[in-house]
Amino acid sequence: MSNTAGQVIKCKAAVSWEAGKPLVIEEVELAPPQANEVRIKILFTSLCHTDVYFWEAKGQKPAFPRIFGHEAAGVVESVGEGVTDLKPGDTVLPVFTGECKECRHCKSEESNMCDLLRINTDRTVMLSDGKSRFSAKGKPIYHFLGTSTFSEYTVAHVGSVAKINPAAPLDKVCVLSCGISTGLGAAINVAKPKKGSSVAVFGLGAVGLAAAEGARISGASRIIGVDLNASRFEQAKKFGVTEFVNPKDHDKPVQEVIAEMTDGGVDRSIECTGSVAAMISAFECVHDGWGVAVLVGVPNRDDSFKTHPINLLNERTLKGTFFGNFKPRTDLPRLVEKYVNKELDLQLEKFITHEVSFSDINKAFDYMLKGEGLRCIIRMGA
Amino acid sequence: MSNTAGQVIKCKAAVSWEAGKPLVIEEVELAPPQANEVRIKILFTSLCHTDVYFWEAKGQKPAFPRIFGHEAAGVVESVGEGVTDLKPGDTVLPVFTGECKECRHCKSEESNMCDLLRINTDRTVMLSDGKSRFSAKGKPIYHFLGTSTFSEYTVAHVGSVAKINPAAPLDKVCVLSCGISTGLGAAINVAKPKKGSSVAVFGLGAVGLAAAEGARISGASRIIGVDLNASRFEQAKKFGVTEFVNPKDHDKPVQEVIAEMTDGGVDRSIECTGSVAAMISAFECVHDGWGVAVLVGVPNRDDSFKTHPINLLNERTLKGTFFGNFKPRTDLPRLVEKYVNKELDLQLEKFITHEVSFSDINKAFDYMLKGEGLRCIIRMGA
Ligand SMILES: NC(=O)c1ccc[n+]([C@@H]2O[C@H](COP(=O)([O-])OP(=O)(O)OC[C@H]3O[C@@H](n4cnc5c(N)ncnc54)[C@H](O)[C@@H]3O)[C@@H](O)[C@H]2O)c1
Ligand SMILES: NC(=O)c1ccc[n+]([C@@H]2O[C@H](COP(=O)([O-])OP(=O)(O)OC[C@H]3O[C@@H](n4cnc5c(N)ncnc54)[C@H](O)[C@@H]3O)[C@@H](O)[C@H]2O)c1
Ligand SMILES: [Zn+2]
Ligand SMILES: [Zn+2]
Ligand SMILES: [Zn+2]
Ligand SMILES: [Zn+2]
Repeated sequence: MSNTAGQVIKCKAAVSWEAGKPLVIEEVELAPPQANEVRIKILFTSLCHTDVYFWEAKGQKPAFPRIFGHEAAGVVESVGEGVTDLKPGDTVLPVFTGECKECRHCKSEESNMCDLLRINTDRTVMLSDGKSRFSAKGKPIYHFLGTSTFSEYTVAHVGSVAKINPAAPLDKVCVLSCGISTGLGAAINVAKPKKGSSVAVFGLGAVGLAAAEGARISGASRIIGVDLNASRFEQAKKFGVTEFVNPKDHDKPVQEVIAEMTDGGVDRSIECTGSVAAMISAFECVHDGWGVAVLVGVPNRDDSFKTHPINLLNERTLKGTFFGNFKPRTDLPRLVEKYVNKELDLQLEKFITHEVSFSDINKAFDYMLKGEGLRCIIRMGA
Repeated sequence: MSNTAGQVIKCKAAVSWEAGKPLVIEEVELAPPQANEVRIKILFTSLCHTDVYFWEAKGQKPAFPRIFGHEAAGVVESVGEGVTDLKPGDTVLPVFTGECKECRHCKSEESNMCDLLRINTDRTVMLSDGKSRFSAKGKPIYHFLGTSTFSEYTVAHVGSVAKINPAAPLDKVCVLSCGISTGLGAAINVAKPKKGSSVAVFGLGAVGLAAAEGARISGASRIIGVDLNASRFEQAKKFGVTEFVNPKDHDKPVQEVIAEMTDGGVDRSIECTGSVAAMISAFECVHDGWGVAVLVGVPNRDDSFKTHPINLLNERTLKGTFFGNFKPRTDLPRLVEKYVNKELDLQLEKFITHEVSFSDINKAFDYMLKGEGLRCIIRMGA
């Protein structure tokens, strides 16, 4: 037991007081974990588009002050009542979507969309009592995605915390708690390209590159990267992308360009853009008879996916995935294990293009806003 | 070798001289099979909607005179040059879509959409020489789907002929060469419902009832039949359908009705209507996380399948199937074998609601046009 167990902790956190304004490192108070909660000392965290999106608060109801952050690795400091799966000292990844292990989704082999702890971007407080554990200057500070990792310490529901091998390099595996696993899992868990097959990846951001990495690991021999932004192509070569298509370079729809390049279509496609036009192209560019298209990007509220049903009847499959179909507590520890044991040729360091200390966290936002790099690791210590 | 091998055969065929007019039993001449073709003595044939659709010739280019028919069972009379897989005396099912065993589709485990012999409703002649083998009164008569089984003898490409166990009851298994296998395979090969699961079947015609039969055989415990025509419900009970929904009885979309009946959605759905509205409902009524929707019905040319992409992202799968994903030469013989050995509780007799002699073939058309029954067997002998 740490000597802080059961006590309020004072620690530093990067508080977002106002939409779009730089975060401010503040001393905050963090209440002890309640029933089914754990308090975690964060060691490394990284910045994802979703943090920036909610920090900008365009198009959603703003909730401030708030502590963002949902890709991270750390160590359990203390546990609340009834927690038996985790104990102080355990190495963990907090995850933005949970696994209660009791609902129909958790009991289904196929789903990771837990009824209790599925991602909820509207929730700003803890599930058990509807309260925040954080406060600063006497005022509560909102949580984000049940993780709020831009803080030296945070509290999370035990169902949103994956216990991993303590020998894992935490400054690398912290990126597995969101976007990288999403793209990787879309390839290795859902699209499952066969050795020697062809795969088209739409969108070459971090998620798409992780999908390409997954396709490469699976032994795909042709990986066709599709992006409207040609500046993404150079970097994508490192992730196994063998060919590039910029839809802007062609008069005909990109699905036709790809069908011509591949004698009828690719074996698999993975959409990682959020654009519904790309989703339709990704579906229509797979080969009839056996093609599988996997959708990852989060669409706009009023988008409509449209295609001629004959495209489906010709034995194409269309599937969506959430968090790469990984169950956070069951599958992430196994993924980390394979990474540590080099059973999987997953090169996480390629995704990590920047590193800053916690006091420089706003630089991570600058890099992302400028579209520079993929992941910026934020070191909490020192 | 039969003593007719290599000779022109004179036999009776039901010739369709004009769109929508009763067939006329004529004496026709049938040329011997050319390279990679076989000549088959038809013993039983049955009538399917597709025959009626092309006989009515609404919406397609009419091709007459023509010999329809594509669900049948018979015995090989003689074989053309290069045919090694079949010999005179073999018991066979001619099939409207073939399997060359050499193209990428045939070599793929997943596809049955042979590049060479995939269904082609526009083709009216034999593949090898672009000629018809049938003639009457000196004029060529068009083929249909490469099968033309409304004739005592027919010629087919060897790739469109499945060799089956001669012990099989041909007056039953003849229905396996089209619609029944289509629905059955959509269930057992594609939707693959688990034991105890829930399945919605849209459209309770022969294809939909075969899908229900497949769901029942797979051990589904709830089979929800959906049809706009309530008169279909009574019969459907025999096929394992446990509940009925008529979309006309509800103010809200049928997918919402089904979601309420099933606490969030069915595990699997199978659309067998051809209506794009039903396809969308079938997709949207499956449960998030694991639901799989299978589309079977043939849509209209300018239909558009539309859904919000979030329905996909929530881990639903949408798949189309053609001929129930059965490879005609590889899989149909195995299906017949399982039927003969009672390894599969497939009750084909339930589909056979009428029987007529060949001379009464127009009665089969009448039954179908009136919507009476499911399959009418036409006995060629006597
Ligand atoms: N499903 C999940 O679990 C999950 C998790 C994390 C992220 N995401 C989603 O994945 C998507 C990608 O995330 P990211 O962080 O890599 O984003 P990103 O913005 O870094 O990359 C997206 C790329 O897509 C390209 N693009 C946009 N429209 C395109 C089009 N029509 N055709 C081709 N390329 C196009 C952009 O130029 C960009 O390079 C987003 O929609 C994100 O919300 C989903
Ligand atoms: N994919 C294939 O390989 C294949 C093979 C054979 C037939 N088919 C197709 O399967 C479909 C069914 O064939 P069938 O012979 O059983 O047809 P059928 O006409 O006997 O049955 C169709 C049923 O669907 C019902 N229906 C129509 N619209 C509906 C709606 N919106 N909601 C609910 N029910 C609706 C009708 O009332 C009817 O009972 C057809 O589209 C046919 O072309 C496909
Ligand atoms: Zn759960
Ligand atoms: Zn994220
Ligand atoms: Zn073939
Ligand atoms: Zn048919």
